[in-house]
Amino acid sequence: MPQTFPRSEFETRCASAQAAMAREGIAAMLLTSEPDLRYFTGFLTRFWESHTRPWFLLVPVHGAPVAVIPAIGAELMAQSWLTDIRTWISPDYRDDGVSLLAEAIRELVPSGEALGVPLGRETALRMPPADWERLCARIGDRPRCDVSALLRAQQEVKSPAEIALIRETCALAGRAFARVPELLSPGVTLAQVFRRFQMLLLEEGADWVSYLAGGAAPGGYGDVISPADDRPLAAGDVLMLDTGAVRQGYFCDYDRNWAIGHATPEVQDVHRRLHDAARAAHEAARPGATCADLHRVIVDVLGQDPGGRLGHGLGMRLTEWPSLIPGDDTPLRPGMVLTLEPSLPLGPGRMLVHEENIVIGENGAEWLSPPAPRDIPVIDWPG
Amino acid sequence: MPQTFPRSEFETRCASAQAAMAREGIAAMLLTSEPDLRYFTGFLTRFWESHTRPWFLLVPVHGAPVAVIPAIGAELMAQSWLTDIRTWISPDYRDDGVSLLAEAIRELVPSGEALGVPLGRETALRMPPADWERLCARIGDRPRCDVSALLRAQQEVKSPAEIALIRETCALAGRAFARVPELLSPGVTLAQVFRRFQMLLLEEGADWVSYLAGGAAPGGYGDVISPADDRPLAAGDVLMLDTGAVRQGYFCDYDRNWAIGHATPEVQDVHRRLHDAARAAHEAARPGATCADLHRVIVDVLGQDPGGRLGHGLGMRLTEWPSLIPGDDTPLRPGMVLTLEPSLPLGPGRMLVHEENIVIGENGAEWLSPPAPRDIPVIDWPG
Repeated sequence: MPQTFPRSEFETRCASAQAAMAREGIAAMLLTSEPDLRYFTGFLTRFWESHTRPWFLLVPVHGAPVAVIPAIGAELMAQSWLTDIRTWISPDYRDDGVSLLAEAIRELVPSGEALGVPLGRETALRMPPADWERLCARIGDRPRCDVSALLRAQQEVKSPAEIALIRETCALAGRAFARVPELLSPGVTLAQVFRRFQMLLLEEGADWVSYLAGGAAPGGYGDVISPADDRPLAAGDVLMLDTGAVRQGYFCDYDRNWAIGHATPEVQDVHRRLHDAARAAHEAARPGATCADLHRVIVDVLGQDPGGRLGHGLGMRLTEWPSLIPGDDTPLRPGMVLTLEPSLPLGPGRMLVHEENIVIGENGAEWLSPPAPRDIPVIDWPG
Repeated sequence: MPQTFPRSEFETRCASAQAAMAREGIAAMLLTSEPDLRYFTGFLTRFWESHTRPWFLLVPVHGAPVAVIPAIGAELMAQSWLTDIRTWISPDYRDDGVSLLAEAIRELVPSGEALGVPLGRETALRMPPADWERLCARIGDRPRCDVSALLRAQQEVKSPAEIALIRETCALAGRAFARVPELLSPGVTLAQVFRRFQMLLLEEGADWVSYLAGGAAPGGYGDVISPADDRPLAAGDVLMLDTGAVRQGYFCDYDRNWAIGHATPEVQDVHRRLHDAARAAHEAARPGATCADLHRVIVDVLGQDPGGRLGHGLGMRLTEWPSLIPGDDTPLRPGMVLTLEPSLPLGPGRMLVHEENIVIGENGAEWLSPPAPRDIPVIDWPG
């Protein structure tokens, strides 16, 4: 498996995290999630779909990270820049890596010093809670402290190499979205459109398609997270497809809408307003503006607050911090990659949502998704 | 979204869990993972790919489950059999569902009675650890106890409706595997094979492809969890594809091997031995035999223990309990769906793995995957 990044990318990431750890007095960080492990090692596998085994990475305040992982991952991890890779045969019902991990922590964290663990927003400990309790009992004299803010501050600014990858993923999704009309003809069901759109994404260069949601219903759909049903598309439907395709481990996350046969004036108007709101947010997205500012700009153009967040971070994850909500005062910084995701209700059980992806530059934002047209595309349809 | 199962399926699942809870003196269970929520509600969405928001389900010892979920899921959850659906607008940096959840727990669990939470093997709490601490402080007078064994005992036996779905997924993957030779011609890279094989799976009826790993290398591949590289296939390679395709939320998990151009006697012999080991395990897989028994049967045929588990449960998850390891004495019961996954090393950095899927019946096992031929298929290749 060729590595996606040169070794220097990981050394830079590590050095930056370690500088922050030194400032905060943290001797090592314990990481358990797929993106956190991959961020520091480049370890890219779909095997995380199996929830049987825990995987651990220790990032000490000095020196390279230490992997404590199931033996099934040894061969792949050995291709990373790490040299200290400790393995056990998992699952082991007597001790599923806890002793091995505790020993590594005791080596890297002097007694009385702090072990950093992501404990805050958008995190979870990916290990059995009972094993976490066992681990804590073994390292009781090393206080645990939250490093989620530290990791977030670092990961929300993407490197040029990361931005290049996200740009590629957004571009391939754009090519697939442009071909969606090929899939649409009378009789086709939403389930078929979902399958064929995933095939288009693969054909256009996605390594895999981790996320696809959408809807098709008269004058607007009910939500934005549903899988497909077997109902044939019909004139008057608004079709929406929202994808998180992946290439080399980096996501896009944006959607497109189409009117089947015709668009009502209401649908036309709402699509334009969503488009204008995304464009206004793109204009406002400059270093120094905050996430709350972007939220306000979008709500101003929409004329109402649809509720929920109206955009978010994007990268190694489909969704990540920050959030475009009134309560998020994170200042935008160059290198942040965001989705802009205005939505509006049209009536009971009917909504439209529009989403684009941008990257913040020194002088403003740049589109990563090829921006959708202001007018909703209408698909020719008999009847 | 039409429901995959009739309401009675969920009522049966719920009643069975509640009987076990009553025996163990558990007033309610708190569930946070995708399969656990889906098992009791039918809530099927790929939105779990977004790790921003926690989702909660409370299963009380009497009555229907109560969902405590982000508002973005309300529309979809309302299509389930649940009527008590409580929502908050997430993310909320002040209180991301903790108060709402604590209130629901206090309603359903009398002071002093136990709240069940999955804490053991193959589980994780899918919520920020800091929020879990906050929650525990709010419900301090309700002791938490582990329900992972209870959930496992119930979920590892599949209903006829579930088996029918897994059978469908296995069958569609079988049709896609049969078409793999269409993809193989000189110049094709492993990355292209991966993309096109996913397209075949979709074409044959997969809703999505949650897992694909594999390898192609001279005389055997290095591991079984790697993504594809860009190296063109070459004569002498052994190609392996291992997929967890999904249809209506149910997985298959099996692989196939092909020899490119020719197979060495060693590769031919190992492929036959893996095949024979799987077949022997299939023969031995009857109610009353244990997982450890199946492991022993496989090792006996292989002539050595390759290490790690040699099969596992399968269903709503790509991998789940039980494990075919010496330490797992789980007795097989009718309705259990298993993978049989013998592997053998061939030399440094070279291995072969073979995997099939079976369901345990009253009188023995039935193949769900169409069994692979004993002889490794050889793909015509110039040079």
